[in-house]
Amino acid sequence: MALNQEEVKLFGLVGSPFSTRVEIALKLKGVEYRYEEEKVGNLSDTVIKYNPVYKKVPVLVHNDKPIAESLVIIEYIDETWKQNPILPSDPYKRALARFWSKFIDDKCMIPAWKTAFTLDEKEREKSFEETEDAFQFLENELKDKFFGGDDIGLIDITAVFIAFWFPIVQEVTGLKLFTSEKFPKLYNWSQDFNNHPIVKENLPRREGLLAFFKARYESLVASK
Amino acid sequence: MALNQEEVKLFGLVGSPFSTRVEIALKLKGVEYRYEEEKVGNLSDTVIKYNPVYKKVPVLVHNDKPIAESLVIIEYIDETWKQNPILPSDPYKRALARFWSKFIDDKCMIPAWKTAFTLDEKEREKSFEETEDAFQFLENELKDKFFGGDDIGLIDITAVFIAFWFPIVQEVTGLKLFTSEKFPKLYNWSQDFNNHPIVKENLPRREGLLAFFKARYESLVASK
Repeated sequence: MALNQEEVKLFGLVGSPFSTRVEIALKLKGVEYRYEEEKVGNLSDTVIKYNPVYKKVPVLVHNDKPIAESLVIIEYIDETWKQNPILPSDPYKRALARFWSKFIDDKCMIPAWKTAFTLDEKEREKSFEETEDAFQFLENELKDKFFGGDDIGLIDITAVFIAFWFPIVQEVTGLKLFTSEKFPKLYNWSQDFNNHPIVKENLPRREGLLAFFKARYESLVASK
Repeated sequence: MALNQEEVKLFGLVGSPFSTRVEIALKLKGVEYRYEEEKVGNLSDTVIKYNPVYKKVPVLVHNDKPIAESLVIIEYIDETWKQNPILPSDPYKRALARFWSKFIDDKCMIPAWKTAFTLDEKEREKSFEETEDAFQFLENELKDKFFGGDDIGLIDITAVFIAFWFPIVQEVTGLKLFTSEKFPKLYNWSQDFNNHPIVKENLPRREGLLAFFKARYESLVASK
């Protein structure tokens, strides 16, 4: 089988939503790859060599050619292995998929993170509102079962943080932001997405992440 | 001629490097379009309607379908009008073009801007070093006349701020960062890029921008 003759390696971190994005994309395509788990705060020299600019995972290495930045990697995967497309074929729909993916990175993840892990009341409030506004845009944008239609696509994969990570962070920090009352469509989407067979098998263990964020939050509160 | 039957409109600002990116892309393709100049700080309701998320220009409207975010727009243009490709055809080279374009947005423009328009000495110093480091990565990356090879491509267009805007900002603020001594290849590139016939005819007037940034810098210094 042709795919087996190629060397595909992914350097990642089990708890990283960015690594998980790439794993979901590779699994959707049925691409076989070797996974190399890195250490938080102590990345291997190999990763630093492959990604000297950001010194971060994920890094995909395909036949010795390294690629960094999760959204760049996913587009590469979609263009290299054509089966089960991740981006739509129509240029306008592709543009929308890219637009909303960038939006999730810029306008959802950054404030959502701050809302959870900022203790300053005023900043927290501001980030909370920004996150709500951003989630509302996604709520309005969601027309089908998935952002990609009947199947998951680029926006869905990019939003894995919202579906899986944020509810855990919310539980740890006691936030009431992403609820089925406030965002019924987005909430249903998150359930469908997390239960999608390929997504499900690639998500990290919930208990592990919960313990990790709990420790982090407690140390933050203690340091106040 | 088929191109004339389509309606292509660009909402932009003459002094915006992001609008200029899109204009260069459209001109490279030979796409005819109607340009609508917006007002700084007072965008039209039409732009707000087309880009409710960011409320910013540039916005491209093609047969009534709006697209925002300059890099998303450029990929759309490249996929819609195939002549004079802006991205390479090879998936790996495409990934690199996307990677470095994102790098310019994240790691060059933000610190370069801060270096110029932050008065706090320490922050200014930090941004100066970040900008130098980022420019050094580009210096090392530049192998041919242009980042795109013999012709300008996505990275070149994205970097219009470095070629044209930053030298003006530098002149106004007295920075000595982007010089031919420190970055000989990148400096030569900036000359070739600014003198490329299509780029040249789409850059704003140098004197106008110089006066604009001078006023801005003086008001910043006065407010200290």
